[in-house]
Order: sequence, then C-alpha cells, then structure tokens
Amino acid sequence: MIAVDWGTSSLRAYLLDADGTVLEQRRSDQGVLASAGRFAETLGELVGEWPGHVLLCGMVGSRNGWIELPYLPCPVGADELAAAMRRHQDPRLPGRELWFVPGVATDAERGTPDVMRGEETQVVGLISALGAGGHSVCLPGTHSKWARLEQGRIGGFVTVMTGELYALLRQHSLLGRLMSGDDAEFHPQAFIRGVERSGEAGGLLHHLFGTRTLGLFERLPGESLASYLSGLLIGHEIRDRQPIGGTVHLVGSHGLAQRYAEALGLLGIGSMRHPENLAATGLHRLARVRGLALG
Amino acid sequence: MIAVDWGTSSLRAYLLDADGTVLEQRRSDQGVLASAGRFAETLGELVGEWPGHVLLCGMVGSRNGWIELPYLPCPVGADELAAAMRRHQDPRLPGRELWFVPGVATDAERGTPDVMRGEETQVVGLISALGAGGHSVCLPGTHSKWARLEQGRIGGFVTVMTGELYALLRQHSLLGRLMSGDDAEFHPQAFIRGVERSGEAGGLLHHLFGTRTLGLFERLPGESLASYLSGLLIGHEIRDRQPIGGTVHLVGSHGLAQRYAEALGLLGIGSMRHPENLAATGLHRLARVRGLALG
Repeated sequence: MIAVDWGTSSLRAYLLDADGTVLEQRRSDQGVLASAGRFAETLGELVGEWPGHVLLCGMVGSRNGWIELPYLPCPVGADELAAAMRRHQDPRLPGRELWFVPGVATDAERGTPDVMRGEETQVVGLISALGAGGHSVCLPGTHSKWARLEQGRIGGFVTVMTGELYALLRQHSLLGRLMSGDDAEFHPQAFIRGVERSGEAGGLLHHLFGTRTLGLFERLPGESLASYLSGLLIGHEIRDRQPIGGTVHLVGSHGLAQRYAEALGLLGIGSMRHPENLAATGLHRLARVRGLALG
Repeated sequence: MIAVDWGTSSLRAYLLDADGTVLEQRRSDQGVLASAGRFAETLGELVGEWPGHVLLCGMVGSRNGWIELPYLPCPVGADELAAAMRRHQDPRLPGRELWFVPGVATDAERGTPDVMRGEETQVVGLISALGAGGHSVCLPGTHSKWARLEQGRIGGFVTVMTGELYALLRQHSLLGRLMSGDDAEFHPQAFIRGVERSGEAGGLLHHLFGTRTLGLFERLPGESLASYLSGLLIGHEIRDRQPIGGTVHLVGSHGLAQRYAEALGLLGIGSMRHPENLAATGLHRLARVRGLALG
C-alpha cells in the first residue's frame, strides 16, 4: 500500500509492505495549497509506478483539499477513524483506490472548537507503541498539537499557535528588528533564560517586550534574541498545559523536538522523542483495522 | 511655554499660558522616525511663531531622537523628572530654550528591564488630579503601559505588547485571512466573547487559535472576528495585571479607552477615562517644578 501525508505546504509518500515496513519514501513541496485543482496529477507524478491502494491523511481531506471529509468528534481511536475513511476514485488514476482519513475535532470548551487533520493519524501510529494508559503527546510545529491519550484513544487535544507567532514576531515585529543572525543558529543559554522567564509574573504579552529591552540594554546579544524568544514562547506553551503520565511524547523534526525536550526538562517534565514518519505507521494501522488488502 | 509630545510616529504641540491652559494645539505625522536628521526644522515649521520655551517628552529624547537622555529609575515623580530635564539649544532655532524630559526604566524583575518615554509625562499630568494614594494607570496603545502610582510617584510599570500583536495577527497571520470588514467596525458581542474566553483554561497561545475555529465553524461571522481577537488580547492583558486602588485610570484615544473600560467592567474592575492631552499638563507641571519662567 501507499501512505500519503499531505499537508498545507508539503507532501510525503511512503511505499509500505504488508507488515507496514517503509520500502521507499518520497517528498514533495506540492502541498495542498500548491496542488489545488491538480491533486490527481501531483499524486500520479510522485508515486506513479508504485503498486497498491493509497491512504491519505492531512489537509488533503479539508475544504481546500481534494475531497472534504467532516471532522470526527473526540474521543476517537483507530476503530472510529478506520470506519469513517472514505473511498474515492479518480478517472485520472485508473485502477487506484484512494482512501481518505477524516480529521478530528473537539468541542468541549464552551463552544470554542478545535481541529486537527493529519496529526490524528500520527497519534494512531504512536498509540500501539505506548499501550493503553494515559499519555501526553506533543507535535510541535507552526500550530503545535497537544493530545491526551486515554485507553488507546485520543481523549482530547488543543492547538497552540507558538510556531506561527514566533515567525510573525521574528519577521514583522519591533522585536525582530533587534535580532541579528539566522534562526538555525541556536543559543542554548538565551533559550534557557526565555524558558525561565516564562515562569515569572507578568504574562506572555508583557514578557514579549522584554525581548526588546534585553537587546536595548545589551544584556543579550542581538544574535541570541531569537533563541530567547523561542524559549519564552515554548515555555509559556508548556506551562499552560498539564501533561498527564509524567512523560511527554514528542513527535516532530529533530531540531524542534530537541528544543521542546530541553524546555520540558527545565520544567522537570520527562520526554521521549519519536520518529517523524509516524503517519505511515498510522495509515498502515488504519488500513488493517478497515480490512483493506495490503499485499 | 510650548509643550511637545514627540513620539515614534507622530508629534503633538501645545501652546500653553502661564497657568497651563491650552491656547492652541497642532498635530503632525512627522514622528521621530520621519524627522530623523531634521528635528529643528520640523519643530520650527510646526510652532514657528509661538512664543516661549519648548519642553519636549517622548522618543525625541531617545537614541534615535534629537538628543539622547538616559532613563531615570523607578520610583520617580515630578521632582526627579524636573531635576533631570536637559537644556539644549540649536543654532537653527535662535533664542529658543529646549528642555528634554528623560524616560523612565524599571529593573526590578530579575534582570529584565522595562522602559517608557513620554508616558511618564502623561502620568505626571495625572498625578496631581489623583492625589497621593495608590492608583493604577493604563495607557493603551501599540505598547500599552500599566503604571502603579504610590504616594504621588511612579512606583513601577510594565509594558504589554497587545496592540502590536493585534496588528501582526490581523495583517500577517492565518487568523487574519478569515477576517472580513475593517477594524473600525466594532462588534460588541464578539469583543465580550473574547474577553470571557481569556478567563478560561488553555492560555493565550491556545486561545488565539480559537479565533480561527470559530470562523471555520461559522460560530462567529468573519466581520466580527477582529473584535473577538481584540477582546481576547485585552482580556489577557488585564487578567495578567493586578490593578491597585479598585479603579483603573485610562489614558488614551476615545475608541481604545472605551474598549478597555468595557473589558475592565466585564472583569468587575472600575475605570475612569482621562483626556489624551495629559502630556501638556505634565510638561507644564515639570516646568513649574523646575522653576522655568512660564509667562
């Protein structure tokens, strides 16, 4: 089978054997935004000669995607997701069965919903490895997701805008003007100072301004201010959560997961890092639960 | 005398009589950024034929201003500010005495300083009206200032980046894309809903994302989302403060002060609004304390 994790800005495809082992993988920057109106062509070009059914998760199943699937409500596990997958065929991909995974929504918080598409499948890929107890999973990114796992299902989750806010402040704010160097350059001491600052009185909206005054008063060099801001934001993100199970399971790119692991450690919370390609594992699991032919 | 409040993006000049009554006032968009390198010319053009000394407060006394004055440490009152004013003469303004007011800094918070320039003079203009007790003053804006008044002096203050963050999110974020209408259009119910949301669990970084989902799920119309975001941010700003004295004294433009008064009221905190031209009152007071000839 073929597993496809198709997000807003990129696309990852995996060729899996019947046991779910990744035989080959390909990546493209033809995300949902770039592929609008030509999804079948994009997919055909990327995985053309690979055999098997195609399972897809992510924003490709949203209003701006290939076909739109509604959100399933929490709590939700592999059984509910597999049962709600939708089969689709496209004349431009003759002989292919496409199976789309729905997103997940939560609506417990007095009428302010939350949504995810794609991350639920990564979490499904993690669940079998973790066992049935209570677990906290964090998927850092532009919009980080924090999911609570309960008895092998997603009990609830929240989205946190840390990554987008960091980028906005870095590129467009008064704070960004004092920052020199590039973001890839990581300054651990400034990052730690930001995480520590997030625990003091005053609140995030006030703490942000300190990034400017620390620069103005030359208490932090310009090239370390971006790391300070990153620590400040991630520190607030983590302190606003209440992780269950004593350990946070991190799923994300190496550099970002490392920052979160460091911040969690500073706050006395353990963490464990997991591979980024959990979407393939999750899609394989959903195919099995649904009883699709995998060979 | 002439009172000048010269900020980053605008300039207000007041002609005062000996008692501090405003006889005439002029406004210009030649703020410090636009006036760099030609401060004397800008001032000369604006107040050319007005008689008297010129007292100036605001960013005009900063590193990027006309001359740079250091920050005075808190606690600070009219006596300290008047004593630290610096006299300056410019050959392009013959016969004029220019007096610059310093900014104020606080450094109590474990090495993260805070600064203001201009607002301290507005607060001085307010102090004599309020009396010597403990008071909270809020000056909403791009970077809101919250000052604690104690025994007729500024005991401490914090800067909060609410206004800048609102503008960033409105113009550059994913949230802004769902917003229709313009910012001047105020939707009270959505604003109130944002203020209420700020008191729920989850933290600001999570609450921000709700602006998007409320739009996606059509629980708030696109034209009201900006008001919701405004309420959310102002709600967080106020909840992070601990106003003293039971009433918050608001100094700012009519529309913004009204929003703050409404949010404070929702949180059970009283407020009182004061005129925006307090800088003129403050500069007049500083001139008197310094013993400058005012007639």
